[in-house]
Amino acid sequence: MTDLDVWTAMATARAIRRYTDEPVDDATLGRCLEAATWAPSGGNWQSWRFVVLRSPEQREVVARAAAISLEIIEPLYSMSRPDPDDGSRIARSHRATYEFHDRAGEFTSVLFTTKHYDSASELLLGGSVYPAMQNFLLAARAQGLGACLTSWASYGEDLMRSSIGVPDDWLMAGHVVVGWPRGHHGPLRRRPVGDVTYLDRWGEPATPIVGPAS
Amino acid sequence: MTDLDVWTAMATARAIRRYTDEPVDDATLGRCLEAATWAPSGGNWQSWRFVVLRSPEQREVVARAAAISLEIIEPLYSMSRPDPDDGSRIARSHRATYEFHDRAGEFTSVLFTTKHYDSASELLLGGSVYPAMQNFLLAARAQGLGACLTSWASYGEDLMRSSIGVPDDWLMAGHVVVGWPRGHHGPLRRRPVGDVTYLDRWGEPATPIVGPAS
Repeated sequence: MTDLDVWTAMATARAIRRYTDEPVDDATLGRCLEAATWAPSGGNWQSWRFVVLRSPEQREVVARAAAISLEIIEPLYSMSRPDPDDGSRIARSHRATYEFHDRAGEFTSVLFTTKHYDSASELLLGGSVYPAMQNFLLAARAQGLGACLTSWASYGEDLMRSSIGVPDDWLMAGHVVVGWPRGHHGPLRRRPVGDVTYLDRWGEPATPIVGPAS
Repeated sequence: MTDLDVWTAMATARAIRRYTDEPVDDATLGRCLEAATWAPSGGNWQSWRFVVLRSPEQREVVARAAAISLEIIEPLYSMSRPDPDDGSRIARSHRATYEFHDRAGEFTSVLFTTKHYDSASELLLGGSVYPAMQNFLLAARAQGLGACLTSWASYGEDLMRSSIGVPDDWLMAGHVVVGWPRGHHGPLRRRPVGDVTYLDRWGEPATPIVGPAS
């Protein structure tokens, strides 16, 4: 277990879509899951369940869900398989996305679920599971493990729900692939904090706190 | 800016409801907000806005929202103001909750909002803002700053939305109070990870990865 300061972990926890063939060991994955349980949740109810997917049967289901997703996101992002000679940034990004979906059946992944209580909106229910997912991602980063959120549990929800046996009153909130990164990782690309922070009133710059908007 | 390893930050980022009178300085708060922007979001859209609330006018609005919330949660949690002589754990917890709401108008706080896109469910939209909120909380913890999620922006949504001027197509996802902690902080209380983790099928223990269920 590596020590990594929290600032570096947060600033470098980038989505990884290209992985080596090395399997993720139990201890490393277990620490990610334990870190997930440290997150806050409404009333400290901890109404989350994490399902690790790695049997051949569930990997096959994940691969089918990924294929469904790819068909949906291709037109959404105006994406097509790039020419092998195309070395542009967008081509490299698309190539990684295709490789990620094509290899979906090889990965270990984790499904994040949360109980569907009627007492809160779906948005607020998300507030009691996505912090756990973020802790999971940071714990992965701290151990050098790569991770990537997917849309597969959304577009392939019916398939995954029935195959895993997720009860109807549990929401499938997120799905994260994990693995050992291949190649080096570029920096985060984010808007300046001054562009997304207001002071007291919507639209009022928070310059004293976060610097000017760009 | 203090270095703190990411494991300690995650394992000790407990909700703080009792604060000193010392104001939160701009630099400390700014680092929390910047850390928030490092979080992942769907398609890296970063469709979040953070509103720092600290003017006398907005503090008064926050205090009114807190009062509305307190009236709602008192019956929900069967809570009443504890007898001053009652030193039980539950009395101490309730006392901190009342103090937190009573002092609401004194705090600096941050409202987390996210754009309401029709292309995703409200649950999934939460997946693009609550990771940012969790980064904010970890950055607060790393600096010794206390923080507490509140329900005030939910129960007092109309009041806060109109006073701050949040547009109708932006969701108010969360509201976090920050301040310098008073007293010491107890440990996290969480269920064992073995109780909330399954392997491949719903209900199947993930013992090799996270140990047995309790």
